[in-house]
Amino acid sequence: MRQLLPGHGASRGSALGRARVRLPHVLDVAEERIPADAVEDELQRLHAAIDVVRDEMRVLRQRLHGALAQEVGEFLDLHALLLDDPELLHGLDDLIRTGRYTADYALRLQRDRIAGVFKGMDDAYMRSRIEDIDQVIGRIHAALHRRATEVRGLAGDILVTDNVAPAELAQLQAQGVMAVVTAGGSALSHTAILARSLHVPLVVGAVQALMKVNDGDVLAVDGTSGLVVVEPNAEDLRGHRARMRDQVRERRQLNRLRREPTRTLDGVDIKLWANAESRADVAEAHALGAAGVGLYRTEFLFLQRNELPDEEEQFRAYRDVVLGMTGRTVTIRTLDLGADKADRSGLVLDDEPNPALGLRGVRLSLARDALFRTQLRAIVRASGYGPVRVLVPMISCREEIIAVRTMLREVLAEVRKEGQEVAETLPLGAMIEVPAAAIALPTFVGAVDFLSVGTNDLIQYLLAADRNNEALGDVYTPLHPALIRLLHGVIRIAHKRNKPIAVCGEMAGDSTFAPMLLALGLSEFSLHPNTLLELRRAIRGFDLAALRAKAPALVRARDRNAIEGWLRSVGAT
Amino acid sequence: MRQLLPGHGASRGSALGRARVRLPHVLDVAEERIPADAVEDELQRLHAAIDVVRDEMRVLRQRLHGALAQEVGEFLDLHALLLDDPELLHGLDDLIRTGRYTADYALRLQRDRIAGVFKGMDDAYMRSRIEDIDQVIGRIHAALHRRATEVRGLAGDILVTDNVAPAELAQLQAQGVMAVVTAGGSALSHTAILARSLHVPLVVGAVQALMKVNDGDVLAVDGTSGLVVVEPNAEDLRGHRARMRDQVRERRQLNRLRREPTRTLDGVDIKLWANAESRADVAEAHALGAAGVGLYRTEFLFLQRNELPDEEEQFRAYRDVVLGMTGRTVTIRTLDLGADKADRSGLVLDDEPNPALGLRGVRLSLARDALFRTQLRAIVRASGYGPVRVLVPMISCREEIIAVRTMLREVLAEVRKEGQEVAETLPLGAMIEVPAAAIALPTFVGAVDFLSVGTNDLIQYLLAADRNNEALGDVYTPLHPALIRLLHGVIRIAHKRNKPIAVCGEMAGDSTFAPMLLALGLSEFSLHPNTLLELRRAIRGFDLAALRAKAPALVRARDRNAIEGWLRSVGAT
Repeated sequence: MRQLLPGHGASRGSALGRARVRLPHVLDVAEERIPADAVEDELQRLHAAIDVVRDEMRVLRQRLHGALAQEVGEFLDLHALLLDDPELLHGLDDLIRTGRYTADYALRLQRDRIAGVFKGMDDAYMRSRIEDIDQVIGRIHAALHRRATEVRGLAGDILVTDNVAPAELAQLQAQGVMAVVTAGGSALSHTAILARSLHVPLVVGAVQALMKVNDGDVLAVDGTSGLVVVEPNAEDLRGHRARMRDQVRERRQLNRLRREPTRTLDGVDIKLWANAESRADVAEAHALGAAGVGLYRTEFLFLQRNELPDEEEQFRAYRDVVLGMTGRTVTIRTLDLGADKADRSGLVLDDEPNPALGLRGVRLSLARDALFRTQLRAIVRASGYGPVRVLVPMISCREEIIAVRTMLREVLAEVRKEGQEVAETLPLGAMIEVPAAAIALPTFVGAVDFLSVGTNDLIQYLLAADRNNEALGDVYTPLHPALIRLLHGVIRIAHKRNKPIAVCGEMAGDSTFAPMLLALGLSEFSLHPNTLLELRRAIRGFDLAALRAKAPALVRARDRNAIEGWLRSVGAT
Repeated sequence: MRQLLPGHGASRGSALGRARVRLPHVLDVAEERIPADAVEDELQRLHAAIDVVRDEMRVLRQRLHGALAQEVGEFLDLHALLLDDPELLHGLDDLIRTGRYTADYALRLQRDRIAGVFKGMDDAYMRSRIEDIDQVIGRIHAALHRRATEVRGLAGDILVTDNVAPAELAQLQAQGVMAVVTAGGSALSHTAILARSLHVPLVVGAVQALMKVNDGDVLAVDGTSGLVVVEPNAEDLRGHRARMRDQVRERRQLNRLRREPTRTLDGVDIKLWANAESRADVAEAHALGAAGVGLYRTEFLFLQRNELPDEEEQFRAYRDVVLGMTGRTVTIRTLDLGADKADRSGLVLDDEPNPALGLRGVRLSLARDALFRTQLRAIVRASGYGPVRVLVPMISCREEIIAVRTMLREVLAEVRKEGQEVAETLPLGAMIEVPAAAIALPTFVGAVDFLSVGTNDLIQYLLAADRNNEALGDVYTPLHPALIRLLHGVIRIAHKRNKPIAVCGEMAGDSTFAPMLLALGLSEFSLHPNTLLELRRAIRGFDLAALRAKAPALVRARDRNAIEGWLRSVGAT
């Protein structure tokens, strides 16, 4: 039966496909007690969850027809019976009231108790009923929480779930998912930013998705309007096809921008650099008319292998990028290994309690002198083939950038002495991603040639919020007054001292945030080629002077709401 | 034989006792290869380490006399022989040159190889030589690194080692160590700050300590001048006794400050609050004339137990502190659990990859509504017994403090409605420890009644440096321009808006940093009673106007060196 499921469009693009519903999963629950005065709340929480499951199952039952109704129906009926079993409910209440267990733990205890009884039965059929118990308990658990279980083999399908973690989205795309529909989430979440960057159509806030959509349902998803149609009719399909044609047309229009300048309505040129890692990225960056490579990550050379790459191997990799950009500048970032990145090189300490706050980036490089010299030598040698800049990650103070500059100067002299033809000098830049570097920028801005703001890490440290920690929900966000104030200050200082400054975090690749960054004075973006044309188109639609005039209101915004309001006021969302 | 060992005094106090020498230990080394061009460096590193060990052993041998010379000497001679064994040395060189192993891994391979040969021998005596091999290899390892092995049972002894981690120092004090002498370290390190706070005499930078001091030597340590005398003579002992008398006298003089105001030379009163956790702390805070309790941590009620404390238990704990302070204000900090704190309550997620950037402080409290309400109810009830303020940890934005204020208002109305006599209103304060809160302070300063800067966490996030990560060495430091600039701004904003502001991190308890904080305009410190009188004395020695006049130079300081220079210029170090 056709149903409409309204949500919010979070990542453009339409998709037609089968739904793969992923229900929140059963947690491995630890024993946990609650204080006496929390008992009533906990009971209420449990019964609310049971009510939700009862409704879900009723809806499911109603939607079954034909053979499926016979096949699945009887299980659902059994589940409904289990759910209303006074033994089960009573036992749960008792565990919470008398045992002072959490609802979660009570569910687990009750499950084990019932499973024990079934297991003791002679009848194989009855023994297999443990599965049903698990499903029912699992559904209640799911309603208590909003955690997700894994669904595999999504190629060509549309994932319907409660929420998707940012880390997961890339995997989903790699698996070939067509689109994602979530009951929760926000169009400005980290996940949504990634979806836009990866061109995965995404609808968020489709609150009834888990109740209305069944595994295997056909869905027509519109990531722009946010509308999801379940079991679309002929007219819906015509609409979908029209949107697909629009997309193709749009793509064609976008492609015409390949050779156009990135110029605002009022005629100011904005520089778009590409973040590149693979040969394909470099070729794409070149074809799209990127100003150069703004961020060439070198970690891939060191990861998932047992031996460190020698100078020659590194040199060849860097040279190939330089040659691939045919005279445009390539910015090579020195090694930024951290224990959070899969590593077998033995370089990274594996017992750091907080790897994100550990021996990372330039700290590791300065601690491993020989290794760092080898990398600098390879970079310097590559500078013989085209313009190269050196970008240093995790700078937190003046001393570090000066140590790197000294070493770079030594290496340059050394390589030149060996008779190799290399650049006269290599511009040296600092990543601004440690908050201290942003705040103390005036103390070392004179010691760098350019700057690149890594908003991903900067936000993480600024808010003391691990960007991959799902439990933090919306704590990690670029829409924070502290980030805006910090960016505002950093951009101003850089411009005053005539140091080119780019933003290279995910924020830079998402057109949604472009007006914010433009208003703050940013004139260089570094982003994955994936979204370069979209950003170019967005920038070509802005009047820079008008945006700049609105900067004070943005800098004054006192909370997330106000920042979202500002974005709406400039027509960004 | 009497020897002088000059170092830097890092924590005042004299000690006389036996040396316990802790040598850097053998690491469990993982297989690690090096690039071809690093081979020569690695060989050099190894041979430098072997030379160091050879020297160390020669010195040791020379110092042996009497029975000891006979007993230990032969082992030393054997070790010296082993060290010069061409088989051993050649094997190591080969492993590095051909195998491309690190010196560390080569040592381990070689050790296992030789141990294998010895193990195969029939002679028990020869088999026991494996121990000697291990000692020699261990010494080379020690020279390659500067990591430390554990020494137990230090009561009454003086620890001599290369370096002590901050986390370790508290343990050492608990074990009853008399003093600590380190070959490395700095008087401004985190470890030195802790030593001063714990009153553990500490001499750092006694570079020859590991070479000159033998286990069991008698040492006279002067933590003020930094001089260590090995095997002191009669005159040294007289000097030591004189210093001990001075210390007693000084302690007496300090104690006279109990009833004196904390007033600068130019007559400005500074408020000293106490950080308190135990009854003893509270009693001490009261006796020392603290303005009140500036930081009462509540985690201890939740840690190392399986059940959460109920409202009544919490209420009683809070009430006792309030009563103990007889009318002076008590600042109760709401729960700041994080996965880094030993926890069995099940409240804290145990699978966070970066717990310091996880669901901590107010985030956890807002996520666990019932738990938080219970705590607020207990605090509100305690306010019936004396003035109470509520301090909220890990605030990062306006929304959070407003959520807490709303809940506090509700709870206050609720408790009052139950007929309990409570305060008219409870001042609500935010910890400034997340960098975003410091930067975006203007957005929410109007929503708080007071502020408390937690420098321990603030520095950690600001510098993206886990303060317990030894590998980071000096990256974690309060002597960073970013911290100074941030504190400067935060204090200025707070004063402008008439919001009392204190600093409550370790920095506040260390007189060394007092001139920095006074210069930046701070007029409230919150610190453990341990060092309250020292800080009072230090403050009474400063002319505030003169310090304030030097603030611009401090705020402009561009690196650690410059900040240390500033501290010297005001006579602080």
